Amino acid sequence: MSDAHEHRGIFPVRRVEAFADGVFAIAATLLILDVVATGSPLSEELIRIWPSYAAYVVTFVLIGVAWVNHGTLLGLVDKTDRTFLILNIFLLTTIAFLPFPTRLLAAHLLDEDAEAATLAYGLTLLVTSLLFNALWFYGVLRRGLLSPDVDEHVVQGISRSYVPGPFIFIGASAVALVSPLVSAAIFTLATFFYLVESSLFARR
Amino acid sequence: MSDAHEHRGIFPVRRVEAFADGVFAIAATLLILDVVATGSPLSEELIRIWPSYAAYVVTFVLIGVAWVNHGTLLGLVDKTDRTFLILNIFLLTTIAFLPFPTRLLAAHLLDEDAEAATLAYGLTLLVTSLLFNALWFYGVLRRGLLSPDVDEHVVQGISRSYVPGPFIFIGASAVALVSPLVSAAIFTLATFFYLVESSLFARR
Amino acid sequence: MSDAHEHRGIFPVRRVEAFADGVFAIAATLLILDVVATGSPLSEELIRIWPSYAAYVVTFVLIGVAWVNHGTLLGLVDKTDRTFLILNIFLLTTIAFLPFPTRLLAAHLLDEDAEAATLAYGLTLLVTSLLFNALWFYGVLRRGLLSPDVDEHVVQGISRSYVPGPFIFIGASAVALVSPLVSAAIFTLATFFYLVESSLFARR
Amino acid sequence: MSDAHEHRGIFPVRRVEAFADGVFAIAATLLILDVVATGSPLSEELIRIWPSYAAYVVTFVLIGVAWVNHGTLLGLVDKTDRTFLILNIFLLTTIAFLPFPTRLLAAHLLDEDAEAATLAYGLTLLVTSLLFNALWFYGVLRRGLLSPDVDEHVVQGISRSYVPGPFIFIGASAVALVSPLVSAAIFTLATFFYLVESSLFARR
Repeated sequence: MSDAHEHRGIFPVRRVEAFADGVFAIAATLLILDVVATGSPLSEELIRIWPSYAAYVVTFVLIGVAWVNHGTLLGLVDKTDRTFLILNIFLLTTIAFLPFPTRLLAAHLLDEDAEAATLAYGLTLLVTSLLFNALWFYGVLRRGLLSPDVDEHVVQGISRSYVPGPFIFIGASAVALVSPLVSAAIFTLATFFYLVESSLFARR
Repeated sequence: MSDAHEHRGIFPVRRVEAFADGVFAIAATLLILDVVATGSPLSEELIRIWPSYAAYVVTFVLIGVAWVNHGTLLGLVDKTDRTFLILNIFLLTTIAFLPFPTRLLAAHLLDEDAEAATLAYGLTLLVTSLLFNALWFYGVLRRGLLSPDVDEHVVQGISRSYVPGPFIFIGASAVALVSPLVSAAIFTLATFFYLVESSLFARR
Repeated sequence: MSDAHEHRGIFPVRRVEAFADGVFAIAATLLILDVVATGSPLSEELIRIWPSYAAYVVTFVLIGVAWVNHGTLLGLVDKTDRTFLILNIFLLTTIAFLPFPTRLLAAHLLDEDAEAATLAYGLTLLVTSLLFNALWFYGVLRRGLLSPDVDEHVVQGISRSYVPGPFIFIGASAVALVSPLVSAAIFTLATFFYLVESSLFARR
Repeated sequence: MSDAHEHRGIFPVRRVEAFADGVFAIAATLLILDVVATGSPLSEELIRIWPSYAAYVVTFVLIGVAWVNHGTLLGLVDKTDRTFLILNIFLLTTIAFLPFPTRLLAAHLLDEDAEAATLAYGLTLLVTSLLFNALWFYGVLRRGLLSPDVDEHVVQGISRSYVPGPFIFIGASAVALVSPLVSAAIFTLATFFYLVESSLFARR
């Protein structure tokens, strides 16, 4: 197959960056539409809806971390091909889907629908992390899109940090069936762990 | 007419890319606002609204494919003129319109309004594909905006892939009058066909 | 005053372009949220809401034309200063305001509130065109931000095309008090006149 | 620690600019969704909802000023590190949160919930200004991300202009407990003071 070669120069990485930057930034910024305060009096309502704030902050940071990872990945690639573009569109489809389960979590974390809401949130993250792995291991590494000057340690650091994602999210989703609040706490911890300690940031 | 010449250097292709990237990315990301789950219990509602997920994924991918095509087209052009900018604005108008018929499809695919919803979706895609053809055959080829170094095979590959669009969408729209579900299935297949196999991707 | 000099190199025109591109593209794309079809049966509702489609298309094209003008203006400037940035922020404030009067027009063009809706639309466009004039005549020309190599004919063409705007929009707003539909027709004609024939496009 | 060095070249400032530009532009443009006119007759409703217009304009300009400050800060930095990226994500989280308290202010400035709405608005601005200070003093200056060729006077001008922010916003928030309208007036004055006179603009 020579897709990669054929595309070279026609569809530059720079354009993929621009579209992806847009989708990540818009998906993150749309999250605020999920924060709604219609109860009365407002002072009590603003305290009552704390799950909305938590869901907003955690998901915004999570999209921010995902954007940094995606941007790092694009920075290591110097051409695109058909498979890469297809996997990338599906990844962006799940990123842009996140405002929906976040809205469910914000609205239902404390009511009888908490289990379904947390499960929907967890499964979306599971699909997101599976597509990140597919884009990296199959779309980039297997198909040879990596720039020739990329340090092998950087590649290994990214690979190591991508593998646990699906397991964390499938685990946290399973916990949702027992305790939605504990599941939500795991999502929060995982997000801040990835933000602060992950080798995604530290090993480069 | 010497519009093309007069604009050269004043309104660069790079700016058209930036605006178009924004519209494509925002239109795709706004689609999630069409996915709504207000019924109860949530666990059943999340299964019941499967047409929302299908309409979201198909339209997001479709906008992604349209964005790749649009970006490829812009990559072959090294100047803009008045006609090109006008056709481009109308094309973006229909792209940004897509969240509306997608919302209709998500809400009505399984009720008595399915025919009207599917028809609205199909006609929007028909207009989109007609404008893509107008932008390419009239705006770019006829008016000579193509970069001098573009390979003739690339031009022919794009031309071949643009022509069937209107026929597919007028056909699928007609089918909506008989069976909305079959029509929706054709839109889905056409989108994934364009995504995976189309000469839009493969022949370059 | 030496603001312009002090800013040179610190706040590049390129960044203003990026922010403006975002605001124009988002404002245009948000317009689709103003197109709402909740009546039943859907087939009749989709015909009944034709003012929504008209308001959507006209305002989208109008924002597109405004974006081309704004982009052309930025292309003639090679530095920014405080006054320019302030006028630019106010201009973007009115551009991003447009989805609101468009929503009013879409909802009320055919009911007893048509006069108020059309007037709100016209006054927003009036303020927009006044700010375009302020940005160009005061922010750019008077304060000397023009690139030294800009052709005097281009400058005169833009000046000639900016002056009629406020008069057209104050006139069309006044007409709204007599006949909202005639006023809306003038807005539509003005938009397509600017799009197709205006010296904004033709004289450069 | 050598994060800064390790990131150099992998995660360029240019990408942070693109994401930040997106979030600032989208947050500002989403504000228009907070302006709602559903009362009747429309002519009276459009006057009655003046707090919506005020909240829209003030917050849009405020986000515009914040964007100029953020862009200036990024223009002085020639590399990013983990701490900078984390602080930056939290800053963007609060910027994108602004449409929520703005919606509260627009809806409640004149009713019995004005105190809670104004307080929510003030506290969001307080957190925003604290994160701006953290990003500048800790993320940039303390950790040495400043480009070597930046003029010391520019650095001092920015430092001087950042310090009063938290005090202004904590003061205005406290005033909200006594008089929401006076508090809102202070936010308005502070915004236009920053826009017109602040050393953020003038001293560079």
